[in-house]
Amino acid sequence: MTSRKVVELFYDVVSPYSWLGFEVMCRYRNVWNIDLKLRPAFLGGVMQGAGNKPPGVVPTKFLYMTKDLQRLSRYFDVPIQPPSDPFEVMFNKGSLPAMRFLTAVQQKEKGGDKQVEQVSRELWRRIWSEDKDITQPASLSEAAKRAGLSDGEIAELLRLSSSQEVKDKLKNVTQDALNYGAFGFPMLVCHVEGEPEMFFGSDRFELIAHCMGEKWLGPRPDNSAAKL
Amino acid sequence: MTSRKVVELFYDVVSPYSWLGFEVMCRYRNVWNIDLKLRPAFLGGVMQGAGNKPPGVVPTKFLYMTKDLQRLSRYFDVPIQPPSDPFEVMFNKGSLPAMRFLTAVQQKEKGGDKQVEQVSRELWRRIWSEDKDITQPASLSEAAKRAGLSDGEIAELLRLSSSQEVKDKLKNVTQDALNYGAFGFPMLVCHVEGEPEMFFGSDRFELIAHCMGEKWLGPRPDNSAAKL
Repeated sequence: MTSRKVVELFYDVVSPYSWLGFEVMCRYRNVWNIDLKLRPAFLGGVMQGAGNKPPGVVPTKFLYMTKDLQRLSRYFDVPIQPPSDPFEVMFNKGSLPAMRFLTAVQQKEKGGDKQVEQVSRELWRRIWSEDKDITQPASLSEAAKRAGLSDGEIAELLRLSSSQEVKDKLKNVTQDALNYGAFGFPMLVCHVEGEPEMFFGSDRFELIAHCMGEKWLGPRPDNSAAKL
Repeated sequence: MTSRKVVELFYDVVSPYSWLGFEVMCRYRNVWNIDLKLRPAFLGGVMQGAGNKPPGVVPTKFLYMTKDLQRLSRYFDVPIQPPSDPFEVMFNKGSLPAMRFLTAVQQKEKGGDKQVEQVSRELWRRIWSEDKDITQPASLSEAAKRAGLSDGEIAELLRLSSSQEVKDKLKNVTQDALNYGAFGFPMLVCHVEGEPEMFFGSDRFELIAHCMGEKWLGPRPDNSAAKL
């Protein structure tokens, strides 16, 4: 028996920094001795619950983030391209249907979270790479199809998405994030010697490695990894 | 003739993340092929000019930052200890006299910025390690004395601190930071092939190294370096 350290990753596909954190952790789960738990949650609920404001409301901070994401995208090898109207996409359209859909995917999937991983990635690709909608059922279907799900599975997931059970599950995961002290995403919770250590953002990987007794090898530990 | 890349570091001693950035850059100026320019500036003016709010006003974010600083302090080997009343220290007392004093030190120093570096460090040590005042003339004197300045030099610097010339110089450096797009500190501006690349915070060193064609070797590149 190995004692793999559990790392929970709380994320929302509306958040581009979450995409960076997600891809890095997906790469490292085969490099570090960890059991990565994907925890799709609702960022809007976390911001409201924590009384936090989006960083982009300060104009120079918004400009900086655009530049920062461009540089990080290249360095992390994650194909981020801001949508033409980020405010509309992030604050008006939002991610509630997408995160309910992902919650349904996780609910249905047995024996792992390969589908959750792939559908998450396809949703990010739509919103943060291809400037496409993620709120309409047809959009969610396309993402799921690209992730390899069948038409039958997708139809069932869309039905399940609007069930009370899935709505409640997303609320509960979001509340779990708030209970750990979240005020934004991505948030990583590393369970080290029984204690949860919470890390916010996608810029603490070197410190996370240090805290877990692992090595940080840069954002591309496995150079042979397939392109996104 | 070598063509060393110029890196400007904008900071304020009221900011603990600036202390981390400052120590890392002071360590790396002998490792990377850079000409580090210390730019002490007034964070209060930057926040006001950019319309930004301190991150600590969200309660869970404040709690997280306390924990984050504790972990980073250990990992970066910078002895940060939060003062007993951080809000009083950061928002009521502030850093205007300290930053004017540092501006005077820089104004007077010829042939380098060893004194600016050492007095900055002693001011950080007072506020962010020893829970001591940095607003009174006696406090500034103690910090300067510990940095190796003579009583005569200190008396002159205290006089110079309240001159219009020094007040204007601090305003100008603060305005320079805003012109680069600052909304907080630390801010690093790397001049790479004639273009200024701006980096906010003390969590982009790996990316900065990458952008400058240098290597990131962790927060302690020179293990033989003296303890702070």
